Amino acid sequence: MRASLSRYLPILDWGRHYTRASLHSDLLAAVIVTIMLIPQSLAYAMLAGLPPEAGIYASIAPILLYALFGSSRALAVGPVAVVSLMTAAAVGQVAAQGTAGYAAAALTLAGLSGGILLLMGVFRLGFLANFLSHPVIAGFITASGILIAVSQLRHILGIGGGGDTLPQMLTSLARGVGQTNPVTLAIGAGALVFLFWQRRRLKPLLRRMGLSENAATIASRAGPVAAVLVTTLLVWGLGLDRHGVSIVGAVPQGLPPLTMPALSPELVRALLVPALLISVIGFVESVSVAQTLAAKRRQRINPDQELIGLGAANLGAAFTAGMPVTGGFARSVVNQDAGAETPAAGAFTAIGLGLAALALTPLIHYLPTATLAATIIVAVLSLVDLSILRHAWAYSRADFAAVAATIGLTLLIGVEAGVSAGVILSVALHLWNTSRPHIAEVGLVPGTQHFRNILRHEVLTDPCLLTIRVDESLYFANARMLEDRVLDRVTETPSIRHVVLMFSAVNSVDLSAVDSLQALNARLRDMDVTLHLSEVKGPVMDRLRRCHLLHDLTGRVYLSQWDAIAALTPALCAGAPAASPPAGR
Amino acid sequence: MRASLSRYLPILDWGRHYTRASLHSDLLAAVIVTIMLIPQSLAYAMLAGLPPEAGIYASIAPILLYALFGSSRALAVGPVAVVSLMTAAAVGQVAAQGTAGYAAAALTLAGLSGGILLLMGVFRLGFLANFLSHPVIAGFITASGILIAVSQLRHILGIGGGGDTLPQMLTSLARGVGQTNPVTLAIGAGALVFLFWQRRRLKPLLRRMGLSENAATIASRAGPVAAVLVTTLLVWGLGLDRHGVSIVGAVPQGLPPLTMPALSPELVRALLVPALLISVIGFVESVSVAQTLAAKRRQRINPDQELIGLGAANLGAAFTAGMPVTGGFARSVVNQDAGAETPAAGAFTAIGLGLAALALTPLIHYLPTATLAATIIVAVLSLVDLSILRHAWAYSRADFAAVAATIGLTLLIGVEAGVSAGVILSVALHLWNTSRPHIAEVGLVPGTQHFRNILRHEVLTDPCLLTIRVDESLYFANARMLEDRVLDRVTETPSIRHVVLMFSAVNSVDLSAVDSLQALNARLRDMDVTLHLSEVKGPVMDRLRRCHLLHDLTGRVYLSQWDAIAALTPALCAGAPAASPPAGR
Repeated sequence: MRASLSRYLPILDWGRHYTRASLHSDLLAAVIVTIMLIPQSLAYAMLAGLPPEAGIYASIAPILLYALFGSSRALAVGPVAVVSLMTAAAVGQVAAQGTAGYAAAALTLAGLSGGILLLMGVFRLGFLANFLSHPVIAGFITASGILIAVSQLRHILGIGGGGDTLPQMLTSLARGVGQTNPVTLAIGAGALVFLFWQRRRLKPLLRRMGLSENAATIASRAGPVAAVLVTTLLVWGLGLDRHGVSIVGAVPQGLPPLTMPALSPELVRALLVPALLISVIGFVESVSVAQTLAAKRRQRINPDQELIGLGAANLGAAFTAGMPVTGGFARSVVNQDAGAETPAAGAFTAIGLGLAALALTPLIHYLPTATLAATIIVAVLSLVDLSILRHAWAYSRADFAAVAATIGLTLLIGVEAGVSAGVILSVALHLWNTSRPHIAEVGLVPGTQHFRNILRHEVLTDPCLLTIRVDESLYFANARMLEDRVLDRVTETPSIRHVVLMFSAVNSVDLSAVDSLQALNARLRDMDVTLHLSEVKGPVMDRLRRCHLLHDLTGRVYLSQWDAIAALTPALCAGAPAASPPAGR
Repeated sequence: MRASLSRYLPILDWGRHYTRASLHSDLLAAVIVTIMLIPQSLAYAMLAGLPPEAGIYASIAPILLYALFGSSRALAVGPVAVVSLMTAAAVGQVAAQGTAGYAAAALTLAGLSGGILLLMGVFRLGFLANFLSHPVIAGFITASGILIAVSQLRHILGIGGGGDTLPQMLTSLARGVGQTNPVTLAIGAGALVFLFWQRRRLKPLLRRMGLSENAATIASRAGPVAAVLVTTLLVWGLGLDRHGVSIVGAVPQGLPPLTMPALSPELVRALLVPALLISVIGFVESVSVAQTLAAKRRQRINPDQELIGLGAANLGAAFTAGMPVTGGFARSVVNQDAGAETPAAGAFTAIGLGLAALALTPLIHYLPTATLAATIIVAVLSLVDLSILRHAWAYSRADFAAVAATIGLTLLIGVEAGVSAGVILSVALHLWNTSRPHIAEVGLVPGTQHFRNILRHEVLTDPCLLTIRVDESLYFANARMLEDRVLDRVTETPSIRHVVLMFSAVNSVDLSAVDSLQALNARLRDMDVTLHLSEVKGPVMDRLRRCHLLHDLTGRVYLSQWDAIAALTPALCAGAPAASPPAGR
């Protein structure tokens, strides 16, 4: 009873063993993560086109719900860059940014995404995420990083504009660059330079100043907080907002309000596909972060339970004026490095953010959006990794095509087109590759019972026997190719009397392949050639017993290829020398 | 030069060796096929909703062009049942039956289909047809047979109506059955009974009367001609057309006119997908007929050249007032059985049909449509084979699902939905199956160097070593599953120090799987467990050398699993007994 309950409520597991020491560790981690999350939450809300408080709210209820249902000990959920970009793209299609409909649609998106994740978790459909190949994910994240960074440049320049694709954004920037606000640019560029500097240099500096490795790591993550504090004070002190510097402005003070996401049929229809993509992409990102953290402590996470945790978190966001969320890499690493031992650290972070929402929001009134844009740019540029193109090219043309198409289409057409095309292309290329299996004609290595490719090795063959080794499972896309290859060989070499298909690498045979083998058997019979199989694996043999092939087979099934040639070649080609290679090969 | 020319013009091959004996055989075959084709062509034109002469015209230029470009010696192209049904479904969506626009759209469809086939042939894309799995083709042909048979019942009853799906047709029949014309029903039912009888009984009867096997086979195929003659004479003699019996009526006398298919953008857009499906389905049917015939003479056909031959034939149909065509089973078998030796037999058949179009069309004025409907019903019922459902069920649930969905959707929604859903479902089920590979934990069979599944055999294992055999190529859809399984095992058994992945059945590894293996390697390293590979195939090893995995691998790559355990277990577990099964498994 408790076991099945604690499958859905992991808190029942770790909650029973919660100690005073864990409490101390979790509290410390929560303080550090809370400080880091405030600017990050504001920034990602801005990236999604939402009011700043949506980012804070989206880090309160979701964190609490994930602490209850999630299976990772250290994962910190909340708004993240890629999901915020996808939110902006999806919601921008149904409402104009800044309107009440826009914020409402973001809640609907979070609600749909939560529902999808929850359903996937209950029906254990986590494996569906596997159909997003690594090249597609890597390409998509890199392209998203580029899109996000470019989209924030206008805040650094202090100009208007927008756009969903790279060409649109660049055109809009080119048009607006003449109206650049020099004060905004100074603040934004200063913040950028400082953030890049502290990212690279602050940690070594702190280490030299005597901080421990861990403390230096955490303190160096506080760079964005410092940038926020300094630029906010500058704007407030010098009244820069009166010189055209765009600021965050009034943020409501108080705990997240209860909201009811709109679920009108048109809105749901328009947002369902984006919600599905956000769910899957968010899940993949989050699980990969959670697995990395768990492995460091020789722990495991349960992907289906992660779906439930993330689903609950998104539903929480939808009902508390938030936005779509998932597990974030940076915040989770800080959480774990700061010593978080259990999901209670997440709960304490939520309390910390709740206090911030109650007390600190007036202080961020003068925070310049250019600073937030700078923190976003610095954060997402670490996502951009164009070397994946080079690696994929070196590894295989198919993987390269998938990466290149995903990056290209995401930048040029949009995030949904990029992901969808990537998935379709990887499936098509996989089918294409497995539809042209490696098929080798093999012969006997002299003095052994081993068989090798006649093109690569000096082997013994017999003109009346053709042995074909198939290096792929047989299914509809490649079955006919095998049939064609065998029939071509038999037609061009009239001496062939026996064909043996060596199934040592065939892991499965589907009904199309069985039909094709049946046809091959019948056509070879018409040519007075018998068909044999050898080295058929147990599960494949079990399957073949369910159909007529073994009954109709003109030849036999041999346990080993050695058995096959021992039985076939002495009997039928006694006079012929057993060492001549087949003519013309 | 000649070799490359004769790739595109097979006539250059067989034409050079054409003999007087071949001429005699081909002429005889042509006479027999011509007689058989006249009623068949009229019937399939009616099935497609086209005027009867379209069927005759579609058997003249296409046959000639196929004789020039096709690679099969005996294939006879022309209108066939399934393609005619698909034509009716496609053209019915853009124009009303009986209008000039309808016949024009059929020409556009033939032209598009010819263009698609030709392009596929030039770019050697014949392999695309392999993505139509056998269950989908079998299900589609069976469902089409049912749809065609039911669609012809109204002609037997002499009532109006129509419909594209089974429910529509049955509703329409139920509504119209009260208006049944008794004379038409008598003719139709009589023709049906006669045709069924002659199909089963005429050949044995003729054999007993002393005809040779071959002559009896051919004569028994002439049943439809006899039915046509008798019922036409009956209608003409008794003036039955004045009693409401629907007849073919006036058919223009003369050779096929030259036509120019309409290619307006809207029409092309509306017909492109149907044309693609018709091309692929027609190609698959035709190639399977051609291969069956060729194998009987130990000949080969060239699928890419078949595409060119069928493409030319369809373009020919488009420019001579025809309709979409492909290689037909019945006519090709009769052609080969009647002794056709070269494609010249097809050319002579075209001449015969041309003469028929010039001279015989007045004679078919009184031919009742009920007779044509009866010949269609008898012909297509041989396509209906519901036993595929039983076979597929016995073989695998995945194949059954593909068959059942294709049959169900074809009958209930339509031919295009049926084929498309079948293809998508087979691809999805294939991915689903290969995404859950068989992964076995293996141990050493005592006294041997063989390794077997620990769940099925008494084998030796070591608590510090986990050996996993993967029975599937690794790609994006299954890579993470392997990672999860290994990490689960290692997390639950803290004694494990080494993991060996036995790659004996892994035929390929894509970049996603490499990334997953990299992640597994890194996570195991975090747990102080080394990762090794064994029995990696040559092509897989070549591929892995192109990436960092082998460099980063914490363990080694062993040629054989025996080498791996010989190296790992004595060194690291010298004190432990080497014969205990792992705890709890």
